[in-house]
Amino acid sequence: MKHKVITISREFGSGGRTIGKELAKKLGIPCYDQELIEKIAEESGFAKEYVKDKGEDALHSSWLSNAFIDRDARGMSMQDYLWNAQSKVIRELAAQGPCIIVGRCADFILRDTANCLKVFIRASLEKRAERIVRVYGERADSPEKRLKDQDKRRRIYHQYYTDMEWGAAGNYHVILDSGELGVDVCVELLAFIYNKKGS
Amino acid sequence: MKHKVITISREFGSGGRTIGKELAKKLGIPCYDQELIEKIAEESGFAKEYVKDKGEDALHSSWLSNAFIDRDARGMSMQDYLWNAQSKVIRELAAQGPCIIVGRCADFILRDTANCLKVFIRASLEKRAERIVRVYGERADSPEKRLKDQDKRRRIYHQYYTDMEWGAAGNYHVILDSGELGVDVCVELLAFIYNKKGS
Repeated sequence: MKHKVITISREFGSGGRTIGKELAKKLGIPCYDQELIEKIAEESGFAKEYVKDKGEDALHSSWLSNAFIDRDARGMSMQDYLWNAQSKVIRELAAQGPCIIVGRCADFILRDTANCLKVFIRASLEKRAERIVRVYGERADSPEKRLKDQDKRRRIYHQYYTDMEWGAAGNYHVILDSGELGVDVCVELLAFIYNKKGS
Repeated sequence: MKHKVITISREFGSGGRTIGKELAKKLGIPCYDQELIEKIAEESGFAKEYVKDKGEDALHSSWLSNAFIDRDARGMSMQDYLWNAQSKVIRELAAQGPCIIVGRCADFILRDTANCLKVFIRASLEKRAERIVRVYGERADSPEKRLKDQDKRRRIYHQYYTDMEWGAAGNYHVILDSGELGVDVCVELLAFIYNKKGS
């Protein structure tokens, strides 16, 4: 099989994580999502909560001020150390064998890995708003505001560490609208690509 | 089946037209590409050659000056008449039954058609350069220059008549990298979506 590692980048509320988990089940390979946090914590020595808070879903204002201001004698911010640990963990996991990695700039970190299928999952604002209320419940902020905030965090995080524009068509092999196609069809399409021999 | 009409937008040299033709054969439905020119000529009364020259692959400099300067008493340019004829032809074809329409802003013209699957086919510059030399032969201009020129024409044409950014992820349900996946896999993926009932 040609594509041994699948990276899934996703807009918040698009079901990208669910697609990763379902796809992994179908293919019988591991899917790394929250599990990455634990591994990055181990690798970096930082606490799990800290790793989670400073990752791709970090509040962008405090994240940026930390990234630019709080630097050590080597000119490295805490985020830089985390980024290095994250890159190392992701590269090691990809080298171990077939797997799916959700988010965390894995598409960029593995950009030179020939057998990596880069996927982006998106959906309309309406469909995503519907989904986050169904999955995560109502909050004080409107679903639209929550979506825009979260997408912004991921976009800023991605662009800070990579040269790639988050969600730009040229950076992915497959982009699917999960709101239009449905989560199950997305899973089947990706499984088809993965299983296609010699393609 | 949910998606009765498939629009395929494509970067030059990505094999989008071939994918459309192969997909149509597989599904047993018509694919409109060059055939559109004939139909638009009939509808508008313009000569076929004129329709072809002023379409999405027109030279952008002369196309734009025509579009902005040569206007009749109603403020319409020749391109506007062509655009109206093209929109009418595409809407009529889509209303007649299942079909595939390649290029010509069909994605925008059919934006309110609920059962329309919007597809964009792309590939890296390297893969497309390789393909256009194989399919169309060598020319005086380098393949890279030919690709950039042609993409520019399509982008300008698309943006002149639509509010949509050509090739931007948010405007399509499926974006596939034909260079990475291969033309045959793209055809199979789209056939799968088309045949998926109730999805």
